[in-house]
Amino acid sequence: MHIIRYRLERRTGYGIVERNRVFALEGRLFGAFRKGPLVANLSEVRLLAPVKPAKILAIGKNYAAHAKELSSDVPSEPLIFIKANSSLNGPGDPIVAPAWAGRVDHEGELVAVIGKKASRVSEDDALDYVFGYTCGNDVTARELQTKDGQWARAKSFDTFACIGPWVVTGGKPEGRKIECRVNETVRQSSNTDMLIFGLPRLISHISRAITLYPGDIIYTGTPEGIGPIKPGNVVDVEIQGIGLLRNPVIAD
Amino acid sequence: MHIIRYRLERRTGYGIVERNRVFALEGRLFGAFRKGPLVANLSEVRLLAPVKPAKILAIGKNYAAHAKELSSDVPSEPLIFIKANSSLNGPGDPIVAPAWAGRVDHEGELVAVIGKKASRVSEDDALDYVFGYTCGNDVTARELQTKDGQWARAKSFDTFACIGPWVVTGGKPEGRKIECRVNETVRQSSNTDMLIFGLPRLISHISRAITLYPGDIIYTGTPEGIGPIKPGNVVDVEIQGIGLLRNPVIAD
Repeated sequence: MHIIRYRLERRTGYGIVERNRVFALEGRLFGAFRKGPLVANLSEVRLLAPVKPAKILAIGKNYAAHAKELSSDVPSEPLIFIKANSSLNGPGDPIVAPAWAGRVDHEGELVAVIGKKASRVSEDDALDYVFGYTCGNDVTARELQTKDGQWARAKSFDTFACIGPWVVTGGKPEGRKIECRVNETVRQSSNTDMLIFGLPRLISHISRAITLYPGDIIYTGTPEGIGPIKPGNVVDVEIQGIGLLRNPVIAD
Repeated sequence: MHIIRYRLERRTGYGIVERNRVFALEGRLFGAFRKGPLVANLSEVRLLAPVKPAKILAIGKNYAAHAKELSSDVPSEPLIFIKANSSLNGPGDPIVAPAWAGRVDHEGELVAVIGKKASRVSEDDALDYVFGYTCGNDVTARELQTKDGQWARAKSFDTFACIGPWVVTGGKPEGRKIECRVNETVRQSSNTDMLIFGLPRLISHISRAITLYPGDIIYTGTPEGIGPIKPGNVVDVEIQGIGLLRNPVIAD
C-alpha cells in the first residue's frame, strides 16, 4: 500500500494511492484505517512529507564503501545521530543551501517509518514495529559537519531531511537497489543488502536506549558516492519497489 | 509568572502557580492566555515536565572550566547537539540508569523555552523569542558519549532530559547562581554569567540554520563539576530565581 500526505486546495490529509488515484485514508494512520472515497487524481494533489516524525534518527557510516570514502573505520555498532524534526522536507520541495554553509551534499538513503511504540525490541521482532519505507535524502553541510565534530547542526538545516514521495507498507528492507542522481547523472548506486547493520539490528540497538514512537523515522545510512549539490541542481533518490524522491536545490 | 503542567486525578493541564496555589491557564500557552479559576493547592497536583518540546537542543562545552575538565578546548562558536524529545523527564520522575550504559553523569543547566517561531534572529532581538526559563539536567552516559563520538545516543536515553519544576517567564538568563547537588552534596556550583556564549548568541547561532518553534528548549551548557550518579541518589538542580528540579536515580 502507498500512503501519502497531501494538500488539495486548503485541505491536508493522508491518502492511499492506487493506480495514480488518491483515496482518503479513514481512521488512524498508525492504528486501524481503511480506504475511503476517491479524493483526486495523484497529479492533482500536492505531495507533502508522508509522515510528520516526532524524531528523526539516522545512522552514520553504515555502508562500508561510504565509511572508506570518508577515510573512516567501519563502526563496531550502529552509530546514531539525530536530525532536528524542523528540517523535514517533502517531495518536490526545495533544499535550501545557504552560501555561508559551504559545501552541501546529497546522501540518498532508505528510510524506515516506525508504526508501533518500540522499546527494547529484539532483532527478531524488530520489523514488526516498522510501518513502512520511504526514500530519504540526508542532506549534509559537509564542511560544518567536520568543523563542528558533532553532526547535529550540519544535518539539521531547515529542508535537510527530505522524505517521500510516499510510505510503502509491507515488503522488506533488504535487496533494494538504491540510486541517487544529480541532474540525471548517477552519483550513488548501491543496494540495501550492502548495509553493514540491517534494519532489525538498528531498531534493536536504538530501542535499547531510546523509545521509538509511531511516525518516528530512521535514515538507515548512505552508500558511497556522496558529493556536492548546488543551487539549480535537481536531486533524485530512487529505491527499487519504493519510489522516486525528487528535490530541487535553491540558494538561500 | 510560574507556569506548570500538572496532573490532577485523570486531568492534565497547564497551570499558573501563585503562592503555592495552582490556577488554570486559560487560552494558548504560547499565545494569549490568562489566569483562570483555582484548581488545587500546589502540593495536591503531580508536576509534569512543564513543556512538551518538539525538539531539544543543547550546547556543549559552554563553560570554560567544564571544557577544561573534559580536557577540551573552548569551542570557537556554540557547539550544538540534539537530545531526542523522547528522553523528556519531569520533576520528581526517576532517571533510569541502566547498568549496561556504564557511567551516567548529572549536568545541571539553565534551560530556555522558546515562545515564538525564530528563524535568523539577531542577537539583539533573540531574547524576544524566549518564553521563559527552567532548570535542566542534561543526563549523559559518559562512557558511551566517548565511545560513540556522536553524543546523540549518550544524551538521549529515555528519562535523560529532565526539566522543571516550572517555567519562569520574564527575567534574564544572566547572573543566576546555578548549583547541582547529589544527595545534598554540592557537585556543581557556578553562575550563568560564566557562560562562554550567552543565550542571545545561542539563539542567533542556532536560528541561522535551524528554525526554532514555540516549546522547543535549549540546554545552555553545564558548568564544571560533572560526575556520576547512581541508583538511590537524588539529584537536585537549583537555579537562582527559577527553582529546584529534583530527580531520583533508579536502576533499570
